[in-house]
Parts: sequence; structure tokens; C-alpha cells
Amino acid sequence: MSISNHSAERAPHIGTLPAGPLGTIADVDGVSVGHCTLAEGALQTGVTVIRPHRGDPFVDKVPAAASVINGFGKSIGLLQLDELGTLETPIALTNTFSVGVLAQAQIRAAIRANPRIGRDWPTVNPLVFECNDGYLNDIQALAVAEQHFNDAFDAASADVGSGALGAGRGMSCFDLKGGIGTASRVLSAAGRDYTVGALVLANFGRLPMLTIDGTPLGRMLAERAGAAEAANAVANAASDKPEQGSIIMIVATDAPLDARQLKRLSLRAAAGLARTGSVYGHGSGDIALAFSTAYTVPQGADFVALPPLVADHCMDPLFRACADSVEQAIVGALWRAESVTGRDGHRRLSLRDSVPDLAQLLRNAAR
Amino acid sequence: MSISNHSAERAPHIGTLPAGPLGTIADVDGVSVGHCTLAEGALQTGVTVIRPHRGDPFVDKVPAAASVINGFGKSIGLLQLDELGTLETPIALTNTFSVGVLAQAQIRAAIRANPRIGRDWPTVNPLVFECNDGYLNDIQALAVAEQHFNDAFDAASADVGSGALGAGRGMSCFDLKGGIGTASRVLSAAGRDYTVGALVLANFGRLPMLTIDGTPLGRMLAERAGAAEAANAVANAASDKPEQGSIIMIVATDAPLDARQLKRLSLRAAAGLARTGSVYGHGSGDIALAFSTAYTVPQGADFVALPPLVADHCMDPLFRACADSVEQAIVGALWRAESVTGRDGHRRLSLRDSVPDLAQLLRNAAR
Amino acid sequence: MSISNHSAERAPHIGTLPAGPLGTIADVDGVSVGHCTLAEGALQTGVTVIRPHRGDPFVDKVPAAASVINGFGKSIGLLQLDELGTLETPIALTNTFSVGVLAQAQIRAAIRANPRIGRDWPTVNPLVFECNDGYLNDIQALAVAEQHFNDAFDAASADVGSGALGAGRGMSCFDLKGGIGTASRVLSAAGRDYTVGALVLANFGRLPMLTIDGTPLGRMLAERAGAAEAANAVANAASDKPEQGSIIMIVATDAPLDARQLKRLSLRAAAGLARTGSVYGHGSGDIALAFSTAYTVPQGADFVALPPLVADHCMDPLFRACADSVEQAIVGALWRAESVTGRDGHRRLSLRDSVPDLAQLLRNAAR
Amino acid sequence: MSISNHSAERAPHIGTLPAGPLGTIADVDGVSVGHCTLAEGALQTGVTVIRPHRGDPFVDKVPAAASVINGFGKSIGLLQLDELGTLETPIALTNTFSVGVLAQAQIRAAIRANPRIGRDWPTVNPLVFECNDGYLNDIQALAVAEQHFNDAFDAASADVGSGALGAGRGMSCFDLKGGIGTASRVLSAAGRDYTVGALVLANFGRLPMLTIDGTPLGRMLAERAGAAEAANAVANAASDKPEQGSIIMIVATDAPLDARQLKRLSLRAAAGLARTGSVYGHGSGDIALAFSTAYTVPQGADFVALPPLVADHCMDPLFRACADSVEQAIVGALWRAESVTGRDGHRRLSLRDSVPDLAQLLRNAAR
Repeated sequence: MSISNHSAERAPHIGTLPAGPLGTIADVDGVSVGHCTLAEGALQTGVTVIRPHRGDPFVDKVPAAASVINGFGKSIGLLQLDELGTLETPIALTNTFSVGVLAQAQIRAAIRANPRIGRDWPTVNPLVFECNDGYLNDIQALAVAEQHFNDAFDAASADVGSGALGAGRGMSCFDLKGGIGTASRVLSAAGRDYTVGALVLANFGRLPMLTIDGTPLGRMLAERAGAAEAANAVANAASDKPEQGSIIMIVATDAPLDARQLKRLSLRAAAGLARTGSVYGHGSGDIALAFSTAYTVPQGADFVALPPLVADHCMDPLFRACADSVEQAIVGALWRAESVTGRDGHRRLSLRDSVPDLAQLLRNAAR
Repeated sequence: MSISNHSAERAPHIGTLPAGPLGTIADVDGVSVGHCTLAEGALQTGVTVIRPHRGDPFVDKVPAAASVINGFGKSIGLLQLDELGTLETPIALTNTFSVGVLAQAQIRAAIRANPRIGRDWPTVNPLVFECNDGYLNDIQALAVAEQHFNDAFDAASADVGSGALGAGRGMSCFDLKGGIGTASRVLSAAGRDYTVGALVLANFGRLPMLTIDGTPLGRMLAERAGAAEAANAVANAASDKPEQGSIIMIVATDAPLDARQLKRLSLRAAAGLARTGSVYGHGSGDIALAFSTAYTVPQGADFVALPPLVADHCMDPLFRACADSVEQAIVGALWRAESVTGRDGHRRLSLRDSVPDLAQLLRNAAR
Repeated sequence: MSISNHSAERAPHIGTLPAGPLGTIADVDGVSVGHCTLAEGALQTGVTVIRPHRGDPFVDKVPAAASVINGFGKSIGLLQLDELGTLETPIALTNTFSVGVLAQAQIRAAIRANPRIGRDWPTVNPLVFECNDGYLNDIQALAVAEQHFNDAFDAASADVGSGALGAGRGMSCFDLKGGIGTASRVLSAAGRDYTVGALVLANFGRLPMLTIDGTPLGRMLAERAGAAEAANAVANAASDKPEQGSIIMIVATDAPLDARQLKRLSLRAAAGLARTGSVYGHGSGDIALAFSTAYTVPQGADFVALPPLVADHCMDPLFRACADSVEQAIVGALWRAESVTGRDGHRRLSLRDSVPDLAQLLRNAAR
Repeated sequence: MSISNHSAERAPHIGTLPAGPLGTIADVDGVSVGHCTLAEGALQTGVTVIRPHRGDPFVDKVPAAASVINGFGKSIGLLQLDELGTLETPIALTNTFSVGVLAQAQIRAAIRANPRIGRDWPTVNPLVFECNDGYLNDIQALAVAEQHFNDAFDAASADVGSGALGAGRGMSCFDLKGGIGTASRVLSAAGRDYTVGALVLANFGRLPMLTIDGTPLGRMLAERAGAAEAANAVANAASDKPEQGSIIMIVATDAPLDARQLKRLSLRAAAGLARTGSVYGHGSGDIALAFSTAYTVPQGADFVALPPLVADHCMDPLFRACADSVEQAIVGALWRAESVTGRDGHRRLSLRDSVPDLAQLLRNAAR
């Protein structure tokens, strides 16, 4: 199964590591994803929920860590995650102005499941990430409601969609339609096979910088757009207009790693991101979170038993798998997202609508 | 003007630096504070808003930085503040489960004032801090609403209250009634006079550790509570029951400092906090934020002009003033808070109700 | 066994937790300490070496983490320790200008023991901390040589000295003679007994800020030095002259903790430090390192097996033990250090020489 | 002037921003570089010194900040640089086991120039970076001496060499000969022209990952090396053998930025690095330092006057220039380094010696 099955042409395969059977973050056993999409007129937004395992993450907390590559962002929950090295709610993605509502929704859902929270148990730390979809979506309408979180949560399955759905509905990427992308890689580390999966909310970048598997597609498009003059105009635009985007990169693995190691792993998302043309623009909240499904940290237990951890000096294949699956997921978001029209007639063309001869262009560029 | 004017005895003066004329954070010119208090039966909670200057902080951003001393907390807005070194909304304080609602309220207020936000201007980064008031307050009721933020904002003035009001209504501190405390110090650095002001939301600590101006009051109370046995019981309790609290420490100064220097300054709140008996308990979200009113960073300007900054090697008096005013503010919260009864008949005695002979005890302990 | 057995009066016992049998960092089984002291005329300096266990820390690496409370310092080795969460050499302490020489000495010693280092094995990360002893010691002479490291290493034993010896020889603390201090605490966490030990290189602080177990001794000395005028002069001096010192705080424990948790533990040294009067002065390199002896990370192993770790919510007694043993160690350094005369006739009086009636003063201050 | 003037073919130009007149870090006015090379038999190592301006950086400190992308490294001086936001010595580069000796050399040089250092002035913070050249160089010989620092310092000029010289003499990169590379870019930000220059010590990467301007040269070489089998073998090798390298990336700019902004800028080196194929391997100490020449911070001054700073939202062109010049500098190191034979007959071929038809390969790969 490939990430591009509704496209005539598949997206190029990034790197030399193989994908898992689904080619999505759900190749990491137990991970599931659900979306709730709002797509009506000026409202083009939504919610995506990633469940790290089949159980209740408050009861069985998940080792996790994050890297803030560029902190122009309003995500919630990283403070405590950084201190304690665990996540204890599903991971919610949405637009910038809806993090508050989703935090409330996460809190209410956690209390429903565990009525002792905030009584004799500690409070719960909701984890919500965001990108700004304000170009297509009327973000000032604050249209996302708590129920949308619940709907996305209930929809979670191993059948991970991608493109212009869920939190990705209104997102833009390289001046094209962006959104949700996902990918996976299988690798061998310390003599065992592990899987790394990525899911991204891709909403960053200016067109002239777009690079697909090393091919400077953005520059090529600019050049053919019409002689040096036009190309310069595009290039200048890139210098002038700051990125307003962001990208959230969620990385899952079944390799046994602790929070310190997961922080190392999460940072490698920055390498995959850079290879698509990003220089982590000023206005882009670029955040990567990595979690492991190899064990959990039980709520309230006095001691935490861990399986033997992959030694740090064996982590390089994990690092490659992280960078490759993040890059693949970004390419996948561009490949799968359809063109969308939103508020005030703003329109983002999909990569395929924008570049009808994309497959041929990339073939010519390839050796 | 003293911090203890409704107490028969004033709280001891911490350190040797003098307080400012008001003895509150409002001694830093332009800073104002407003409260909205919910006090009905099981609802004992509220909102406190600190306005860093008289204008709109989105238009004229305020240099700021934070130190996370212990990250067991759910505060919102530190990610971007850390990246950009400015705050751009008022500072809101509330209970743990209301950060989402206040984030929404901040966003709506910012959009009302600046309709270009999230359109052709960047999004706004709401800044909301929290402590867990779940012992006295029915925190699961999620009773704080957006309007409470607006009410607290509208109430902001240089007449800063303290004690069991605003966000401090339901807070506990050293097993006594805690809440809002505030203090200020005037110091000379680099040959000029500056003011440092602090406002704390004090909700941390176990009684045996309480220390007032160096006097181990908690231990003394434990000892007289009844011979070694009782003292041991108290001491053991301290070992057994983890802190569930938190403290938010907001530090303002009119000294010209940049974000890097403000981060240094904010960390000195940890020294004042430690002197009250805290060891930054596991379950306590201990966060300090420092901002400067000496200049602003205008929204959208291409260049940022700064006044000459106090050199780092001249910062020691600022560090002392920060530690002293934070310690004084914590003592003030204990001194000023009245006894409160909340959900399920839970009751926190004020320090004065709990220790009627407090003044004499401290006098005896003093030389 | 007390830390003050060569003093007529013992230092006050900080806090309520009991000390271990030795009252030193060597109460953590396997930890040993050695000193090499240079004390001739203008050369008043030296080297102190802490061995974290009886074996070779390169072969069996030690879980460790550090908190930089104030980074005005030149210590070596924290970069890699922060990334990998282990230390792999003994911990060396010396003066500011000798870190380079000791790094070389550590490298040579590691290569002697493991000739594959820098060949088919990775390079070694020497760990060297420093304070500036330039008031008593001719630091520009760069008198410490590689052999002094070897001598201190060879002298390592469980008989930990303290006071004006080893790296502490030329150090000053609160304008008095400082140096090496050490202490321990025994605590119960998660139902088991653990030991925390501290060793400090104390070289910070101005006299008016000195606080012993809550008693503001520095202020009292200033006051009796002659009425308000003199007291003010001292107080002003404190504002004017920046700290030039530093303190290195090494914390050992036999509790099973990972690197993330050890970072949390190390930060609690800041609480103990604050209670002695420090506000982490600008010019003071205040660094705490914590390591665990509960397990090791074998060089080159593909997987790392850990014992069950103490859960984070059970760490509060460890935090108290860390703060208390660091405060006790600082008091111990002052208590044990003798008066020393060094370069250009500079002289630092010991606390006892400076305050002959110290015991009586503290007794009067106590309840 | 190009970076490849002694090569028949120039290295490809990375990105669309133009280079400065020299195409080196010395395009940032005032920056100069000197090398001291040891190349005799088993000793293939050296020292490179970067002077940030023409004066004495202790007297006129230079705003600077660093990003530790992967902390497997032993560099010295970042602790204080991170706290104070300035560098105060030249930047020295050398091999892993020589940082101690160069720290000593820096200290002695600073004392010679400023005899008050460590007396009534604070101590000096030497800044020394390293990579492990142990494959070609007998690193255990500890052959670098203090004089080599002095020689490199005295040789500093605006005529910046590159390739297998200075600290780069023994370095390897992508299993080829690496070493010193340098590049520059000119850009417009906030309506003014600025220059960004980079100098790298490139010693990282495995051949299969080598990517030149988007072309996966490493994979292409692997593929032609002989059918799928061989390619797989190379790919597997890449998974199995961890990187033992490192890269130090020094970024200079004349744009007025403060330390917080320079930290942001330095992180963008990670983007340029990733585009060459790196995923920041476990064993690679990947560190970027950025400094500004737009102003200095005078030793001992009570106030620091800064020019108007480029606003953060105008920094994107600087970010691109940083990423591009770092990538260009890495490519330049490979392009310029000659083949070197070192200890035990170890030999690293230059890129040109290894791939005689390099120019044609890249031309074919290009559109």
C-alpha cells in the first residue's frame, strides 16, 4: 500500500529504507488516527487525533519528548512533557486559535475516563498542537468545538487518511495545498527490526524553496514561469514575505527508547524537513514530537520497569528512518491534498493541479 | 503602604533592600493588576490579570523571558515567548483546567483590539499560567468562563489586592490558605535606581517546610504540636505526600534588560522560593516570568531600537531584588489570605487563624 | 560521625533527615574522593577527584545529568554529558585556569586504561569543573600539572576530607575561607531507603548574605560591626561588588534514576544553595551535577538494561535530601576550612577565626 | 572569486543568493582566519583560528550564540557563551584531544594581552571546538602544542584557505577527505544588505548519504559500484557503522542581532547540514555558532549600547543565507581537500580523486 493510491503517479520514495506495510504512522503497532473535517464555505479547518496506543494514555503514560525547532507556535502541553518525559492524553492537532477549546475537550474526556483526576489524582496535561490555517480558513470564527475533538477521537483507526482533511483541511504548504501526510520506515538497529512512523501537519514554506527528493522543483517552476524576470520576482517574493506557516511532526516508534533518546530522535525530523526546502522560517512553528510504544509508565506506580533500551550508539538507523519518514510524509501531504477554496475566495491549488506534468518533470530531473 | 495593612502585625521585611511606595508589583510604573473572584460554595477560584503597561501589548510587545524551575504545569504561551523574547498579551493567572478558556478569551480580546490578527498580521500568543486549586475548588466544574477574564482585565489598576482573591481564591500554600502575594524592592544598579516588583500565585509546599524569613516556623509548629511523636508524624507526612501545588512568579522591572538578561533575572525567583522552604517539589509547577517596562518592541517594525542595557556584571542588585521580592510576596500571600471553605467542606485556615500567636513566635525566634 | 569533628562545636544539622554514617558523599557506596593540595606561598590551589564507583567509568559509564544554575563558568564535559546522560571519567575539580591541563590528564589516563579510545573506540569526554581561586592563589601561574590529577586520583578513598584542601585550597566563600564541603542524607522513597551525598567546591557569596540554617549571620555580623552606618556600608558593599566566585555541587545517590530524573535532582541543589544566602550572583558559575550508582551503562553494549526506576512522583524525599545535603556541605566547608594566606599577602579568615563566638551567636539566634 | 579556483571545475552554487566577493567567511568585514598545519607521517592534524574582529575580543566582546545539534562533542566555552551571549577569545578549532592545550594557549594569550585577567578583572572564557581526526591522525599522540595556536593566530588574514589544512588536515567527510570549507552569501533584510559567512570543520557522514546540491551522489556511486548487491552492501554499511565524525559550523554576519537572534540564526546551519545528507548521527558532534560584527560589548562598561536590531520577522533571508552558506562550505571542503595518507597507512581520497568524472556526473544529474 502506498501513500499515493489516489494519484495517478506515486510520490517518489525517499531514501533507501523500506516503508512498512501501510506506509503510515499506523505501521507502529497500536497507533491509530482519526479526523474531523470542517469544510463549509469560509470554514476550512478541523481536528486530527493520534492515539499512541489502544488503552488510556493517562493510566498508561507513553514515553515521549519533543524538539522545538522554531518556537513560533502556540502548542499546549510541552512544558510538562519535557519535565516528565511522558504524554498522558492523545495528541490533538488543529488550527492556532482552537488549542484552548481542544485542551478543554481533552481535560473533559480525561475526567470522564478517570474521575479521580484533579481530585486525589494529579491533574491531566492535555497535548494540543496547531498550525495557522488562516489563509483558507476564517480562523477568527473560532469554529472548532469540543465535540469535534470527540468525533476525531472516536474515528481513530489504523486506516490513516492524508491530504486536506482533519486539522489539515485548511493548511497551505509551499504556497500549495498542504495538510496531513504520513509515512513509515522499517529499519534494523542493534540487530532487531523496528518501525518508525511519522504523521505531519504540513503548513509551511514558500514555493521557490520546494524540493522533492532533492529536485529543486520550486526553482524549476519559477524558471519556466517565464524567463529570468519572473524567476527573480518569485525569488524576491520568497525573501520578502515571511513564512506564516508551521509544521507539526509526530514520530512514533516501537523501539525501546527513553525520553532522553526520544528527544534525540525527534530532532532528526529537522533533517527531513530541511531536505524539502525549509530553513525553519521565522514565522513557522516547527515542532517535532517522538514517542515510543515499547512500554508504558503506569499512573501511580512507585517504580517504573523499562525493557532493555537500544543503546545510543545504535540509534543511527532510527535517525535515518525519522528523517526519511518525515520527508516522505511532507511529500505525501502535497501529493494527496486536493485543491481547496476557502474564505474570501482564497484558493490553494494542489500540487497536481498546479503542476499537471509533475511526474514527467521529476522523471526528467532524475538520473 | 505595607503589604499587611489589614493584619494587626505586619509581615517581616525580607532582606535589606527597601520596598517601593506601594509595596506591590505596581511600583513598576505602568503595571496594573485586576482580579475576578468566584466564591460560591464548591466554586472557589478566579482569574487574575496583569497588564504589563498601559497600552496594547500586541502592538507594543514587552521584552520577557521565563524560567521553568519545575515543569509540572500546563501554562500556555511560553514556547513562543522563549523563541521571540516578548510577550504580546496581558498575563492571565487561573486554575489548571481553565487555561484553555482563558487562552480563548485572550485571543478574542486581541482580535477585537486588532482585527488584522490572523489575517494579514500574525496570530496572537496568549499567555496563561495556572495552579491547581482542586483542594478547595471543584476544579472539574470548569467554572471559569471567558467573561471572567474580561472582568479581571477591566478591573486592572495600580491598587493591587492580595490574598484569597482572583486566581488565588482557592489556592493552598504550606497546607494553609495561599493565594496572591505581591511585593517590590528598590535598588541601585550601574549607578541608577530601579524597581523590581513581584506578584505570585502561591499554591505550593507542605507545612513542616514553611520558613518565614529564615525561621523554620513549620518545624516549630510541628514540634509544639505535641512532642517528638507528633513532630515525626508531620515530618513523615511531608516525606510521604507529594506536593500537589505550584507557584507562578511574575517579576516586573523598569531596568532596561533584554530577553536573555530577563531569563537570568527570572531564575533568581528560585532563590526566593527556596528560602520559604520549597525544594521545587515534583508535583509543583514552579515557573517564573520576568519582563521589563523600559522599552517595547513594536509590532511590524523592521528594526528594534533598544535603550542602553544594564551590563550583566551590574545585575547582582537586580538579582537580590528579585529573590527578596518573590520571598516577600509569598510571605505576603500567607499573611493576607483569609480562611476559606470550599468543596466537600474542605477548609484551609489562614496563617493567622492557624497560628494566633504568630507575631510572638516570630519575635521570639528573632534575635 | 559529624562533619565537624575537629571543631569544638559541631555545625548545625540542616533539616530533619538524618545523615549517613560518614556524613560525606562516600556514604553512597562506591564513591571515593582524593585530593592533591598545592600550598606554597602564592600558590594556594589544588585538585580534587571524585570517583563515582570502584571500576573504570569509561567501561561502565555512570548515569548523570547537570543543571547550570548560572553559567559564568569554564567547566568541561557538560555538552556530551547532557546529550548522552552518562559520565565516563572521574569528576575533577580545580581552579579556572587549570581545566585544560586536567582535561589532558583525564584523556591520558583514559587512554592508558583503554588503549582503544580514539582508535576503534570513540573518544573520551573528560569532566572537569572549576572555581576561580584568584584572590588567594596566583591563578596566572597555571601551576596545576597533569601529575596533580594523577596524585588526587591515586589518593581517592572513602575517607573524604573537607575544608582548605585539594581544589578547595584557595577558595573563598562569603568573604571567608571556603573550599571543600561534604554531607549526606538518608531518606525513604517509594518504600525503600536511599542515600544522597553531596560534595561542594564552595567559592561564592558576600559576607552580608551569609545565612546559617536560617540565621542571617552575615547581617548580624554587619549589625554588630557598628550600628546602622556600618551595617549600611556592608549592605552597600554587597550591592556594589559583584560576586566573583562560583560553586560546584556534586550530588551522588544510590537511588535508581535515569538521566532525566537526575537532571531534576541536580536542580534541587539550587534550593540548598539559596538557603545559605546565594542569589546565584552574575559572576558565580553555579553548577550542580547528579549521578546514580544504581546501575551502569556498559561501553559498546547494544542494549542497556536498567533496574526499575523510582517513579517521579516518589522523588520529593530525594529532592529534600539533595537540598539539605548541599546546604549542609556548604556550611561544612565554612566550618572546616582553616584560615589561609596566599598571594600578595591576601588572607581569608576561617569562619571560626572570624567569629570566635560563633557557637553562642547561633545558639542565641535559635529558639 | 570562487571557492574552487584550484579545481578544474567549480563546485555548484548552492541556492539563489549570491556569494560575497571573496566567497569566504572573510566577506564579513573584519573576520580573519589563520591555520597551523601538522602533516608528518602519522601526525595529520592542526589548528585553525577565527578572529571575529581586528581588535581584542576580551576588551570588545562579540555577541554570539550556539546551537548544539548533536552534543557528542568536547568543545570548550559554550557554557559561559550561552549565559552571557558573548565570546571573548578568538575561536579555535582542532582535534578532540587538543581542546585542553588550546584552552591553555587561549588563556595565556589573553593574560599576555590583559594582565588584569584573573586579578581584578574576571577570568577569561576560552572557546575551542573540535572534531575527531583519529582515522588519519595519531590522535593519541596529543601532538598539538600551545605554540600551534599562536602560529595559527599570527597567520590570521582575510585570505582564508580551505581543504586539508589547519584543523581540517586530518578530517574525513562522507568517507572522503574532509576539512575546512568556507562560503558567504549576500542578502537583503529589512531593506538593507547584509553578509553571512560560514566556515566549517567538516568531519562527518558516510558515503552513501552524500548529497551535492540535491543530487544523491553517494547513492549514485553506490549504484554504479556494481548492481543492486553492491549498493545494498553500501547501504547496509551505512546502517551498521555509526558516524564517528562531527562538524563545527561557524557563522558570521554583519547584521545587527542580539544573542537570542544569533541562536536562532545558528540553528539554521542544521538545515544546510541536512541537505548534504546528514541526519546528525549519534557519534557526530554537530555544533553551530553564530556571531555578529555589528557591535561589541565593552569589558567593564556599566551599560551596553546596541544599534537598532533587525526585527525577528525580517530574519528569513538571514536564515536562508546561513543554511546556504553552510551547505556551500561543506561542499567546498570536499571540493578543495586533497587526498591524505596518515597513521597506519590510512588514506582518505579527495572527492575529485575518488570520482574523476564528478563534473560530468553532476551535469547529468542536473536538469
